[in-house]
Amino acid sequence: MSQLVVMKFGGSSVADADRIKNVASRVTAKRKSGHRVVVVVSAPGDMTDDLIEMAEKITDNPSGREMDMLLATGEQVSIALLSMAINEKGVEAVSLTGPQAGIFADAVHTRARITDIKPTKIFGELKKGRVVIVAGFQGLNPNSDITTLGRGGSDLTAVALAAALKADVCEIYTDVQGVFTTDPRIVPEAQKIDRISFEEMLELAGAGAQVMQPRSIEVGKKFNVDIHVRSSFTEDEGTLITAEVPRMENVVVSGVAYDPKQAKVTLRNIPDRPGVAARVFGPLAEEGVNVDMIIQSAPESGKNDISFTVSRGDTKRAMKLLDSVASQLKAEHVVVDDKVAKVSIVGVGMRSHPGVAAGLFRALADGGVNIDMISTSEIKVACIVKEDDGPKAVRIAHKAFGLDKPHPKGK
Amino acid sequence: MSQLVVMKFGGSSVADADRIKNVASRVTAKRKSGHRVVVVVSAPGDMTDDLIEMAEKITDNPSGREMDMLLATGEQVSIALLSMAINEKGVEAVSLTGPQAGIFADAVHTRARITDIKPTKIFGELKKGRVVIVAGFQGLNPNSDITTLGRGGSDLTAVALAAALKADVCEIYTDVQGVFTTDPRIVPEAQKIDRISFEEMLELAGAGAQVMQPRSIEVGKKFNVDIHVRSSFTEDEGTLITAEVPRMENVVVSGVAYDPKQAKVTLRNIPDRPGVAARVFGPLAEEGVNVDMIIQSAPESGKNDISFTVSRGDTKRAMKLLDSVASQLKAEHVVVDDKVAKVSIVGVGMRSHPGVAAGLFRALADGGVNIDMISTSEIKVACIVKEDDGPKAVRIAHKAFGLDKPHPKGK
Repeated sequence: MSQLVVMKFGGSSVADADRIKNVASRVTAKRKSGHRVVVVVSAPGDMTDDLIEMAEKITDNPSGREMDMLLATGEQVSIALLSMAINEKGVEAVSLTGPQAGIFADAVHTRARITDIKPTKIFGELKKGRVVIVAGFQGLNPNSDITTLGRGGSDLTAVALAAALKADVCEIYTDVQGVFTTDPRIVPEAQKIDRISFEEMLELAGAGAQVMQPRSIEVGKKFNVDIHVRSSFTEDEGTLITAEVPRMENVVVSGVAYDPKQAKVTLRNIPDRPGVAARVFGPLAEEGVNVDMIIQSAPESGKNDISFTVSRGDTKRAMKLLDSVASQLKAEHVVVDDKVAKVSIVGVGMRSHPGVAAGLFRALADGGVNIDMISTSEIKVACIVKEDDGPKAVRIAHKAFGLDKPHPKGK
Repeated sequence: MSQLVVMKFGGSSVADADRIKNVASRVTAKRKSGHRVVVVVSAPGDMTDDLIEMAEKITDNPSGREMDMLLATGEQVSIALLSMAINEKGVEAVSLTGPQAGIFADAVHTRARITDIKPTKIFGELKKGRVVIVAGFQGLNPNSDITTLGRGGSDLTAVALAAALKADVCEIYTDVQGVFTTDPRIVPEAQKIDRISFEEMLELAGAGAQVMQPRSIEVGKKFNVDIHVRSSFTEDEGTLITAEVPRMENVVVSGVAYDPKQAKVTLRNIPDRPGVAARVFGPLAEEGVNVDMIIQSAPESGKNDISFTVSRGDTKRAMKLLDSVASQLKAEHVVVDDKVAKVSIVGVGMRSHPGVAAGLFRALADGGVNIDMISTSEIKVACIVKEDDGPKAVRIAHKAFGLDKPHPKGK
């Protein structure tokens, strides 16, 4: 049956002429089998980094508008070259920048949100039988300026386009085979997941799985766009991220996520009075430092400890902000442990299976792994452990929930 | 007095961060002295060539539309970086692509013509006190596609913008000091010309002077835009190309142009009957081979010789086209001499001074230079000579008309 398919290729897939030709082959094969095809591409290889480096030689503080003007050229190079490569194979193709494709975004430069998609032009080109190549990562803001969508922006373009076009599927081509039960570099027995629900994928991505940014999965969930994560190098099916995943009852945990680059910050002995948490976390939020887990110890003689985790890359910024806060609050001192990692298990099955968290804690204890902090959601249990214990903890969790054996396939 | 100034910088002026900062200094100085400033820039250094090379690795036959999509990124990089550099110096700047700047062009990809400029956006930004940086070489065609203007396109953008904005002057910054009486590499005594008329400059450019493409000068002439060609590296005044150049009566010749890369093609013994010239030159024109001088010898027993000159780079293409024509016309043979050069003298003073051509011929003869072909216009005399005689012929002509002494300044 003829479908409307959105195919998205990342920067490494279009890094040089040979890879671009390879992408062109996949796209033309899809088109020749009768499907209507819209392709979304990122900037080639390191081009975005090169452009950022050029800007850094000019100024430490580029305006967001000009940065977007600069960075948007990367995807424009990709779409032109890919369109040429597809034309060369005898299939008509046409490239469109984000603005030409009717992608509208808000005015927040360098990390805009898509506000609307008007796909008239795309539908017009599809009707002419053409493959439409759209620049990922960019849109037009209300001032008619080019904006970029920030990290994972091309995935977002692809999923949002698939929603606007009511595409049958959005295929995300990557350098991995799909979504795995955990990182195969840590657990060689990790299994490729055939189907996973949006909410599980969201939790996995939020907990450190690198395959896709949460923003795109949110859009997929909101507009019910089936997302097929698959390899650019093989024809094998990858992982379908979708709304409903019928599963055998006994599948409780779908995957183990691992984030080795965490840091734990503790404010010791701060006064236990209302408003303290706001004073601590307000400035962090304003500066865009993402705080993950937060633990406040039981008060003892009117004093508290507050611990929280941040991405390790944010540690310095967080400390700078906290130094003044801590002295204002008369906290005794601020302690940083930047040698911690986060291990999380995710599965919708947890809802109907009590005791999953306890099972994880026991397995880790049996394996001699000490848990430092814990946070849970309805379908996730996350533990902070010593960085050195991280890979071991991942292996234990992966095995404890039977993920190292081929899944009984959901149909 | 506060002016509206268009400043144009070529690719070598924005080839790296230091040069971009240097351009930013010039622009901010101009702005700070109270002028309103619009800047036009080309792609940085070799970027256009690099992009073409990338395309060549993909296909031998890229569509013009996709080539334009690709090449337009070069100028977009320049405008973003230059805008950042100007902002960094504390002067507000905003970059605009050709389409954003309201530059409309026809649908002929890779060598479009500007059809219209709607400067509303530019005037709006100028009103806010901003320096406006416009991408040269590009415009929007009637299909809302990006087109590029071909060789010399950024100069054209600058002059056309100056016309549309009714700017006081269009400054073209180059790596030379201005327009010289001839190429100083050949004649060290060559003098910088302070003022020159559009028509003289057109003839000089058409005859091989490299400073500016004739297209831009034509637009300057049509809309009476003063064009100031000057150095990016010094503050010295360059050459003003303008409508009226009052001169001392005795200045007859303004400059000597030299084009060393010419080839002469001769078709021997073709029948002398109507339509032959059309059969010869029609196919050349269709394929975009520019024919310069044409000489048809007096018929002899119903047979003719036709000689003409082309740019040496076009010789192969011309020969290919002529081979079939020649055999159809039963020409005896086609002879190519690709070791010829063109030396031209240009000056509006010729109109009122008869005998200028004769003076040139005598001077060349006295110097032992043989003239192969001659063509004249109202303000130009051009001679084809042996390539080896070229530089000598230039020196002779330059001296014969007193150009090696400082001009009596026109005021």
